[in-house]
Amino acid sequence: MKRLLKNAWILTMDDQYTEIRNGWITVENGRISALGEGLEPSDADEVTDCCGGLLLPGFVNTHCHASMIPFRTMGDDCPDRLRRFLFPLEQEAWTEALSYLGAKYAAAEMLLSGITTAADMYYFEDRVADAFAEMGLRAFPGETVICQRAPGSDVPEEALRRSRELLEKWSGNEWIHPIIAPHGTTTVTPEILQACQYLAEKYSTLLTLHACEMDYEMRYFREKGMTPISYLDSLGLCGPHLLAVHCIHLSPEDIARMADRGAHISTCPGSNTKAGKGVAPIRDVDASGIAFGFGTDGPSSGNTLNLFDQMRLFAVSQKTVCRDRSLFPARKIVRIATRGGAEALGMTDAGQIRIGFRADLTLVSLDGPSMFPVYNPYSALVYGAGASDVSLVMTGGEIRVRNGQLTAVCLKDLREELESVMPSFRNAAKKYADII
Amino acid sequence: MKRLLKNAWILTMDDQYTEIRNGWITVENGRISALGEGLEPSDADEVTDCCGGLLLPGFVNTHCHASMIPFRTMGDDCPDRLRRFLFPLEQEAWTEALSYLGAKYAAAEMLLSGITTAADMYYFEDRVADAFAEMGLRAFPGETVICQRAPGSDVPEEALRRSRELLEKWSGNEWIHPIIAPHGTTTVTPEILQACQYLAEKYSTLLTLHACEMDYEMRYFREKGMTPISYLDSLGLCGPHLLAVHCIHLSPEDIARMADRGAHISTCPGSNTKAGKGVAPIRDVDASGIAFGFGTDGPSSGNTLNLFDQMRLFAVSQKTVCRDRSLFPARKIVRIATRGGAEALGMTDAGQIRIGFRADLTLVSLDGPSMFPVYNPYSALVYGAGASDVSLVMTGGEIRVRNGQLTAVCLKDLREELESVMPSFRNAAKKYADII
Repeated sequence: MKRLLKNAWILTMDDQYTEIRNGWITVENGRISALGEGLEPSDADEVTDCCGGLLLPGFVNTHCHASMIPFRTMGDDCPDRLRRFLFPLEQEAWTEALSYLGAKYAAAEMLLSGITTAADMYYFEDRVADAFAEMGLRAFPGETVICQRAPGSDVPEEALRRSRELLEKWSGNEWIHPIIAPHGTTTVTPEILQACQYLAEKYSTLLTLHACEMDYEMRYFREKGMTPISYLDSLGLCGPHLLAVHCIHLSPEDIARMADRGAHISTCPGSNTKAGKGVAPIRDVDASGIAFGFGTDGPSSGNTLNLFDQMRLFAVSQKTVCRDRSLFPARKIVRIATRGGAEALGMTDAGQIRIGFRADLTLVSLDGPSMFPVYNPYSALVYGAGASDVSLVMTGGEIRVRNGQLTAVCLKDLREELESVMPSFRNAAKKYADII
Repeated sequence: MKRLLKNAWILTMDDQYTEIRNGWITVENGRISALGEGLEPSDADEVTDCCGGLLLPGFVNTHCHASMIPFRTMGDDCPDRLRRFLFPLEQEAWTEALSYLGAKYAAAEMLLSGITTAADMYYFEDRVADAFAEMGLRAFPGETVICQRAPGSDVPEEALRRSRELLEKWSGNEWIHPIIAPHGTTTVTPEILQACQYLAEKYSTLLTLHACEMDYEMRYFREKGMTPISYLDSLGLCGPHLLAVHCIHLSPEDIARMADRGAHISTCPGSNTKAGKGVAPIRDVDASGIAFGFGTDGPSSGNTLNLFDQMRLFAVSQKTVCRDRSLFPARKIVRIATRGGAEALGMTDAGQIRIGFRADLTLVSLDGPSMFPVYNPYSALVYGAGASDVSLVMTGGEIRVRNGQLTAVCLKDLREELESVMPSFRNAAKKYADII
């Protein structure tokens, strides 16, 4: 089967930011087999006219808690919501069915917005992995390991067992790449963090955790004369397996250390700024050479599961904090959202439109009201486009979204299925009505 | 003609933020004639089922340069673009046809995103007013008065004449309310500013200008021992006619003075943060009681002409600068975007869903991927919704958008018409290719 996408404005995201204005690509066996300008090959089995839209590598979401759809719009403006109602409500009312059906809905939402790969951490992640695989979303799922009672795991050892099983089950699979996901720097003991690191090394996979995010976290380590990063380093976790999430409060020494150790970062500008937590020092992270990408965070933290919002929120927050309009020009931001994310997840054959690379592709239509005119396609993507401008999405060579609609399932059905398992969750949430 | 909108989740935006979950309203003679819960009247001439969507007062855009569509994505990340290429390119290549057709396209884009009223300042604003009137967008257009050669006016006196003509032409009209629009505090002489103020008072209308926006502006007044606001006050402009735009760099004394004088503010978070200019001290503005609303700014400054983006960008920038997640909860932000904007423009019969008020209404569908679940409808609007979630828009009782599409014109046709008058503009822009 040879698929042809023609009449596209291709943004390759290669080192030279090569663009092909009237471009075409062919896809075979899940990968890009050829690309060019002008006259396209005539031997394709299926031809899709991109109508002059922007064809770019699929967006890579480096941090999500996809299943958390049922929490969305709950207490958005509530301080310390994690401890005030998210943890208690999870402990009381979260179920395996919510994890699975929440992840299916979220995967649909991500695909519809052009995200082709997502890293994820939550509970019952074996079912989340199933959901992603069924939806055709490439994913890096990790069972949350936390030293308190949690859905599916009364003790962290149970979550570690789940992590191992996940790794064994999907070993060698090209869609699902399980990772290790200790919750954070203060919610997991040093011993369990090291057990996580042992697994990450044994299975050659990423270890992701929340770090340098919370004021109380920063205070805790400051009182010990440390930073969360120096602490992780002292445990042997600050290395090439690390995907540290948020990293809002990094010192210059932390950045130098992470760069030196080959650690990776996921920055979540939407979640962080909505929470009033601050703006990560990404100008310095970028200068250090650390690989980093964007994360939507969960749907109750970042709300929308698309990288258009993250790109724009990243642009405006960085430019504002640094008082520099020219900082992070649009094409650099599109690079972070695509190739940068792939690099942060250690993917060496995704994130660019390049022969031999995975056919994880997103087509953005220029028909939407704000997509005219387009002198600079990167500007249009960062400052003008939204999830609804995505018209076609391909993962591994298969078309998941066409004409802005899922090809294999109906979003409404996914919503109804999820809604059908939500009543006791909704009921349990009522006791927090005064704070949410 | 009596129109009924039924099965709506009505957000009235009254003083108590009253919601009607299963609500209906009737519209007669351009105004809301009745509203209620449950069983709706059976004598309507036309019935629209809102399918449980959020029905709210139309968004009010308090600052735009609508016609500037042809500039969009041009030099977004270029510092000092106003003087480096916007002014020169306007002087060289701007035409009356671009003003008219740019405004028509922009009006379509605004209506599609649920904006029902817009304040505007640009050149050939008589044609902009025509465009808005034809599209059914309620508007406050003002001819830009500036002390340099400008499109349509070689000297500011010419722009003042255009302003007077605009005021005379639309006197008493309920759709078009012309205003006076001197460009800014440093681009207009004190004498011309006072001539503008004379007109604003004579015609009982608003005077709008850019103020406290630019670093060089702030430096200029600081060297004179003044602020832009104290300067305006010394000229007699800081009063109930003033709609000061941007106001990023307001001192506590400026805020107290503006509150005392009854001045109004338009804040443009998207434009300001993208430019790295800073975040306006709106917490203090709000506490002072000054009436204020959101502005998209022009399509080359704020890029998207919708208030969803402004609401979210406002939320995250304010919460981040003040390090306070609970600051400006979502419902307060929706209030600013609707009723706040109406108040900033001095409209006393718009901005709420209330009997006798203008039937300027926006219906936001809950079908979109990020609009589920909805515990808090204001949260869904601020953190989740986008322009593409708007399904129906009414201005003055007439339906302008239905099922997310314009009812009277086709966006594609408007784009083609505008494109047909753009070639010499595009050509002139080429000489700035190295900076944009």
